[in-house]
Amino acid sequence: MDFFFRPRGLAIVGATANRKKGGYHILYNVRQGFEGNIYPVNPRYREIDGIPCFASIMDVPDPADMAILFIPAPAVPELALQCARRGIRGVIVESSGFSEVGAEGRSFQDALRRIAAETGLRIWGPNCMGIIDTATRAVFSFVSPSIWEDELVRGGVSLVVQSGMLSGGFLMDAITHGQAGFSKVCSLGNKVDVNECDVLPYLIHDPATEAVGLYLESFADGRRFMKICRQSDKPVVVLKGGKSPEGSRAALSHTASLAGNHGVVRGALDQAGVIEAVDFKEMIDLCVGLTGAAGWKRAREGRIAVVTYTGAGGILSADFMQGTGLSLADLSPPTLEALREIYPPWMPPGNPLDLWPAMERQGPLRALSVALKAVCADPGVDGVLLHAFVGGAVSYVDLEEAAETAYSAGKPLFCWLLGRHSQVQGFKESARQLRIPVYGELSRAVKCMAALFRYKKNRRDSKG
Amino acid sequence: MDFFFRPRGLAIVGATANRKKGGYHILYNVRQGFEGNIYPVNPRYREIDGIPCFASIMDVPDPADMAILFIPAPAVPELALQCARRGIRGVIVESSGFSEVGAEGRSFQDALRRIAAETGLRIWGPNCMGIIDTATRAVFSFVSPSIWEDELVRGGVSLVVQSGMLSGGFLMDAITHGQAGFSKVCSLGNKVDVNECDVLPYLIHDPATEAVGLYLESFADGRRFMKICRQSDKPVVVLKGGKSPEGSRAALSHTASLAGNHGVVRGALDQAGVIEAVDFKEMIDLCVGLTGAAGWKRAREGRIAVVTYTGAGGILSADFMQGTGLSLADLSPPTLEALREIYPPWMPPGNPLDLWPAMERQGPLRALSVALKAVCADPGVDGVLLHAFVGGAVSYVDLEEAAETAYSAGKPLFCWLLGRHSQVQGFKESARQLRIPVYGELSRAVKCMAALFRYKKNRRDSKG
Repeated sequence: MDFFFRPRGLAIVGATANRKKGGYHILYNVRQGFEGNIYPVNPRYREIDGIPCFASIMDVPDPADMAILFIPAPAVPELALQCARRGIRGVIVESSGFSEVGAEGRSFQDALRRIAAETGLRIWGPNCMGIIDTATRAVFSFVSPSIWEDELVRGGVSLVVQSGMLSGGFLMDAITHGQAGFSKVCSLGNKVDVNECDVLPYLIHDPATEAVGLYLESFADGRRFMKICRQSDKPVVVLKGGKSPEGSRAALSHTASLAGNHGVVRGALDQAGVIEAVDFKEMIDLCVGLTGAAGWKRAREGRIAVVTYTGAGGILSADFMQGTGLSLADLSPPTLEALREIYPPWMPPGNPLDLWPAMERQGPLRALSVALKAVCADPGVDGVLLHAFVGGAVSYVDLEEAAETAYSAGKPLFCWLLGRHSQVQGFKESARQLRIPVYGELSRAVKCMAALFRYKKNRRDSKG
Repeated sequence: MDFFFRPRGLAIVGATANRKKGGYHILYNVRQGFEGNIYPVNPRYREIDGIPCFASIMDVPDPADMAILFIPAPAVPELALQCARRGIRGVIVESSGFSEVGAEGRSFQDALRRIAAETGLRIWGPNCMGIIDTATRAVFSFVSPSIWEDELVRGGVSLVVQSGMLSGGFLMDAITHGQAGFSKVCSLGNKVDVNECDVLPYLIHDPATEAVGLYLESFADGRRFMKICRQSDKPVVVLKGGKSPEGSRAALSHTASLAGNHGVVRGALDQAGVIEAVDFKEMIDLCVGLTGAAGWKRAREGRIAVVTYTGAGGILSADFMQGTGLSLADLSPPTLEALREIYPPWMPPGNPLDLWPAMERQGPLRALSVALKAVCADPGVDGVLLHAFVGGAVSYVDLEEAAETAYSAGKPLFCWLLGRHSQVQGFKESARQLRIPVYGELSRAVKCMAALFRYKKNRRDSKG
């Protein structure tokens, strides 16, 4: 798979000088970050934007181990064959018009399948959006060049998406909203040859990847997929499309996927230690939660201290924990004693720990500092769910100190955040760097925290 | 209740010149927008920020029909009694230190209850954050004055929150993220006298309110509350705190609420036509969905056309509809014929309607315009779920035209939005003004759309 992610030379078949077309976007995107050789292929041009353009893939010089094909579907099989003859090792077919559109398209896709089987050429796609790698800044995709106007935020989350358009839009949304940092985003499309069983192991072995989220409409080889997941030392999150009869019918016309019975799938995923997401952003949120527990070495129970500025948030936190394996920790007598020192005498501290009276008395920063140290030192506390607010002049949280406190205690710290729009982004960015997962909806924070504890427990159990 | 929302004269007992204190914030906030008479009361000052300050509530001149009390809990009963003697009609007690903190606090709260019963003084709170009214710009609350740095976005959603700190933070988050426009936000606290059965009817009769969301930890009078909801001609959404045993225990120490058995509550809410939310932001999202269907007069079935740029979004939309009462509409032959004109011949249009091939052919604006007109004209389509994306230079949606198309057809248009952070806000703002509900997570969009159809169906059924 490495030649897909880090080719030495890359041909772009269907490159064009028309700036409105995907064939130009691919060339533009590749040039922004990719450091290997770039070979546009299109008989209509001698050069595009100053780069020599080749009439045929056969004319492309060495080194050239990968090609992106962005030409009409009927022409794709012949070009793929030429690539194989030329010694190209893998092609990403980003054109659509294959099995997803009916009988004729299916014949082109069948031809591609035969070519892969007969020549050994690896074929990624068709009907896909290619690869985005934030570490190498390789954008092998027709995604809008406007993606470069924002920083490609690096991080530990890699995605595999069996969809074309979504991956680009989804990624831009997630990156610019500070939802996560990413390693590699892979859009698989119709999976004529390369599928999740090829890409997932590559990502599991990728040092920059800490968790993998997959949106799949079908499993190319369910048994093998489950085995890969079971053996993975990194969390795998799956969002399955086509769970309902109507969704399943729609999947057939999207990526020609047969979705299967989801009850069976769910059981298999669970047994393989896979975390199931129900929606797109939740998939990323779960990945963030599962990678966001720096310093958390030992697996423990899910006894949580909830530190809040709002009683209502404390109550709903407890409600959301029900049935997830998380519970409110019983704070020990020494912890309660340490907390009483910052509270007014009329207010007994408890869990959820409504910190407001202590904040009024001690100032928010000192109250939170004492409270976090106290609950993190408590052997009966396995993790902390902090409710934070940003807005106005007063800072309620010293994130660095909070991360340090949780980190030294080896306890995961999760955060539910409300606040002014203009200040929320900065908080999220700092928290991301400190590996504190942050969520805007409280139920989501609890769900992702529960997923982390359940994942760690499963790993512990499976190791005996 | 009107004297709480629109007093002619307002005393602020516990006003202070110390800008860091809540007693100053209240005065500051009241002065920003309230146009009636303002009377700070504090024996330690002759004036605060140039406004004459009174030593006692008895010295306050007419007209004075409401007072906010922000003084230590032990002093509150005596002051409330003085207010009653002075002819004040209602007080909002924003201090904490009552039933939520134990026996001594409970005695103060009991005293307040007796005073209300014996004198007829209406007492709002204690342990609450008061009232924010975006229409009159009345902020009767110790919420941080930084709330004025953002626009108080007016709109049809009113909230009733049985919590102190949350309401302010929650509101700032919702307003600055463009989640909704608001009419009145009411923080009820411990509900010693004024409760949801007083405030909800007032909001139902408030012309600026179109839907009411309530966060409640207990029902002061469940039977009466359900009756009010059943008779309401505006949607009511309830988020109940303390549904779990642990959450219920936490509610007891928050607002001294006995949460009760939620199975029973759920059945009663359902019978009363109340929509139940599971989380804070979801409560607002549901209110937005329930008020966001301008022009939708006739109640219809929930047959939805999904117009998307991503097949994966179409599939998950279908998955999320399962069991909600919504379903994918069968597009009629004339609709399909109209759609075929914008599609390439190899791509048969269907529902979900993956518009990407048509967008590539016709340009996104024209493709979407034709598609929306076609599905809105279809008698078998009751509503449209549009998947939108903003980012880069290309605009995919002419929101005004889309709203006009849906409005003239009398069909609700909901939107799932992904996009670049900097452009998402503007889209949401325009959509809010056009009454198109917009959601960032697809499952949320489907859930809120389903709530609207179910609500309309219930109303239709209950009218026979």
